[in-house]
Amino acid sequence: MKIISQVFQEISPADFFYRNREIAGFANPARAIFSAIRELVENSLDATEPVGILPDIYIRLSPVKGEGGEGENLYVLRVRDNGSGIPADYVPLAFCQFLFSSKYKLRQSRGTFGLGGTMTILYGQITTNKPVKVISSTGSQKIYEYTLMIDIERNRPIILDRKIRENERGWHGTIVELSLEGDYIKAMPKVLEYLKQTAIVNPYANIIFIDPRGRLYKFERVVLSLPPQPKETLPHPHGVDVEMLYRIIRVTRCKTLLDFMQEHFHRVGKRIAQRFLEFAGFPEEADPKSLKPEEIVKLVQAMKSFNDFLPPDADCLSPLGEEILRAGILKELEPEFVDVTQRKPSAYSGHPFIIEVGIAYGGKVPVRDDILLYRFANKIPLVYDESGDVSWKIVKSIDWRKYGLTPGMPFAVLVHICSTKIPWKTVGKEMIADIPEVSREILNGVREVARQLGAYLSKKERDKREKARLSVFAKYLPKIAEFSAKLAGRNEIPSVENLLRRAKKIEED
Amino acid sequence: MKIISQVFQEISPADFFYRNREIAGFANPARAIFSAIRELVENSLDATEPVGILPDIYIRLSPVKGEGGEGENLYVLRVRDNGSGIPADYVPLAFCQFLFSSKYKLRQSRGTFGLGGTMTILYGQITTNKPVKVISSTGSQKIYEYTLMIDIERNRPIILDRKIRENERGWHGTIVELSLEGDYIKAMPKVLEYLKQTAIVNPYANIIFIDPRGRLYKFERVVLSLPPQPKETLPHPHGVDVEMLYRIIRVTRCKTLLDFMQEHFHRVGKRIAQRFLEFAGFPEEADPKSLKPEEIVKLVQAMKSFNDFLPPDADCLSPLGEEILRAGILKELEPEFVDVTQRKPSAYSGHPFIIEVGIAYGGKVPVRDDILLYRFANKIPLVYDESGDVSWKIVKSIDWRKYGLTPGMPFAVLVHICSTKIPWKTVGKEMIADIPEVSREILNGVREVARQLGAYLSKKERDKREKARLSVFAKYLPKIAEFSAKLAGRNEIPSVENLLRRAKKIEED
Repeated sequence: MKIISQVFQEISPADFFYRNREIAGFANPARAIFSAIRELVENSLDATEPVGILPDIYIRLSPVKGEGGEGENLYVLRVRDNGSGIPADYVPLAFCQFLFSSKYKLRQSRGTFGLGGTMTILYGQITTNKPVKVISSTGSQKIYEYTLMIDIERNRPIILDRKIRENERGWHGTIVELSLEGDYIKAMPKVLEYLKQTAIVNPYANIIFIDPRGRLYKFERVVLSLPPQPKETLPHPHGVDVEMLYRIIRVTRCKTLLDFMQEHFHRVGKRIAQRFLEFAGFPEEADPKSLKPEEIVKLVQAMKSFNDFLPPDADCLSPLGEEILRAGILKELEPEFVDVTQRKPSAYSGHPFIIEVGIAYGGKVPVRDDILLYRFANKIPLVYDESGDVSWKIVKSIDWRKYGLTPGMPFAVLVHICSTKIPWKTVGKEMIADIPEVSREILNGVREVARQLGAYLSKKERDKREKARLSVFAKYLPKIAEFSAKLAGRNEIPSVENLLRRAKKIEED
Repeated sequence: MKIISQVFQEISPADFFYRNREIAGFANPARAIFSAIRELVENSLDATEPVGILPDIYIRLSPVKGEGGEGENLYVLRVRDNGSGIPADYVPLAFCQFLFSSKYKLRQSRGTFGLGGTMTILYGQITTNKPVKVISSTGSQKIYEYTLMIDIERNRPIILDRKIRENERGWHGTIVELSLEGDYIKAMPKVLEYLKQTAIVNPYANIIFIDPRGRLYKFERVVLSLPPQPKETLPHPHGVDVEMLYRIIRVTRCKTLLDFMQEHFHRVGKRIAQRFLEFAGFPEEADPKSLKPEEIVKLVQAMKSFNDFLPPDADCLSPLGEEILRAGILKELEPEFVDVTQRKPSAYSGHPFIIEVGIAYGGKVPVRDDILLYRFANKIPLVYDESGDVSWKIVKSIDWRKYGLTPGMPFAVLVHICSTKIPWKTVGKEMIADIPEVSREILNGVREVARQLGAYLSKKERDKREKARLSVFAKYLPKIAEFSAKLAGRNEIPSVENLLRRAKKIEED
């Protein structure tokens, strides 16, 4: 028998994502253009709004002409923001090393995997062989300008150039400029849809996009208030696993389990800690660092099954709020009717989340054969792979006729989930997984706004009928008055105004 | 203005997948049990069939009882195969280090990302805090038994124990045994479906599964022939990017571009290399190592746009073949009708692929409200997230009534794609992306077998009608004969046998 010997090989994280770029949203030239814009815009939003800055984002996609005749699918993408900037020493690693990021914390942010920006730069590099230029300042006295590439096999940044300029006007922000291959013509509908929807859920942002033909798309800020800033939070006991517990034990300074529980976990006070330790069968005075491996498992299992922990607090989340959501919808869709609702905070496996839902009818709401759904997660619009998303499943399961609605009418549903941990199905962040707690909240939220729209539509229908009835009155009452006057031999025709007014009043009551 | 300083952090690949285990198929206890079994079984199949061994795979999932009362969701999973085994020195890295694998080659295999096994071990570790035991031999004089854990923060194996035994009977293979938390009751339908479908596309394998209640599921080998072994192949010029070209240039010994093109790329002979270099505007004699960065881009762009390269050869692929596919379907579904087809090799972005399609009707084919679709990729059954898969889109787009079929009839469609690069949508390997070249082949394949089934069903319907007609003849002809005989005053009734036989014959012609 012949046994082929296997060749084993170690690859770097950069090499892994280089080989599997499809799963991160870079499957083909059209998708790549979309993902590149999306990733850089989201980094810009994450560098502004959560730190209290009203975002000004400028995006320019320019064609590269000339070079070798083959240039019509080569572009330069430049994205500039007025965000907090990146400390100079971190620029090369933050942009050109995979798995190096500021996003590996228990806090709501658009980025989760900490690899979108680097993935974009990698894609640009492997299609054009050109370096990326990053200009950044934190508002200090200097502006740093780096020219960088990625050493993919070793997952390290290569610094080709570094310039330092005086920051005379105290500018803070980041500019990223890179070359990439793409297909903007094909990507265009998705890119514009993405920007429009980004403007809906970020109505406090100014976004300017200049496309390869020089067309300017401008999404202007309509509110000046920002959502509450997301806070970093402690892990909820229900979401803890053995590895996490080990890591916390390694760094803790607590000498007793009673202190330990209160110090390191979300919403655990003294009384709850005591009741929990009794339930779990651990003495309050035990030293966390002396726990044996099997005791650690026992503690984790007890954390999962103890039902009296307080539910996670949504204070750490940054939902839009009904006002901002309404403003965003009114701005981009100009509907004749809008309703929004924010559900109460809920949680799955220890992760808090909030669902916000909106509905819009009429105005500029597009008409589609099927239901029009806008999906958002941590203020990111999701514009691909709708059919695999939990929200799509929910809106398709609803009997819309109950609310006087059928697909084909000009109405749109918006679902926004925010969480410290969005249950993504993929690294490309297109679909949200079907978690029971999440789908229940979405269903209830959609029903709530659908009822409001249903009530509005049935009132509108009633009004229309009454108006028709009144116009019949208005048409015939004068005739009757005239006829009656003639019949009575009177010259003066009595006024019907009072009668009409009364009829109208009865309708309105 | 307040600017919060960002905290940057580097995490290891192990830590990345630990934090994002949902995207690799470990979202919840039910899914985790399924994925654990699947990943280990696929590693076992990859260690046997592609190297010419008829697979014998033994899977045992046992409950862990007692420990602390909370034990009903803890299991021990043991998977044993008779594969090629893993060289002793590689065992710790291959099992307990992410991004270390034998699968990072241009060759068809079930594994792609090289992380399923390690992911399973990591999940077991973070839920039970127990090490994994790996026993392996390549058939040499020794059997190695390792007890291992993963240092997640550093992405390194921790060797807790290593035993060496004599391999007296020349055994080769691998045994993996690990503890994990899970929910087998919920996972059971998917696990059994997965094993049944694995048996359909791997009918040359013996697979035994013992579930937590001790029930034995046995899938026995019905064919002794293996599919052709997949071969490693060179990259096709259409799929080359700048990074790949750099890597090849770095290792090449070729002194001229003419040699270089022939040596390193798939199906490039001298004449094609000459025509291509002329097209691309490069001298044949140019030294590949002296190409400038912009020339490398130009060469890659030319490779993509030159239309006269030969299409990728499917020799490197290992499709099932019609015979094995038919045997698998007959064995597991015992249908009254089966048809299979293998499409001609095709390619997308330089990656060759082959689509195989089967259809089965009647027998043990389950009846479903909707169309019953079995999806396979490189001999892996895909049992989750059907609605996001390209094959589902295709079968839903077909007008089945044209073939005399409606959902609810006992028929099943099977689609198998094999490729050196399956266009996965996710790391969890549940869905195949909608690539135009792929969907076209699937559509044509499904139509082909559907036509065969349609023809079978209409013949069956015709036969039934004729049988009914003949039975009418058979009932009345003797009466007529009897009556006619009486009328003619004859005692002997003439035989109608000849007439009936003739009617039957006319029908059959």
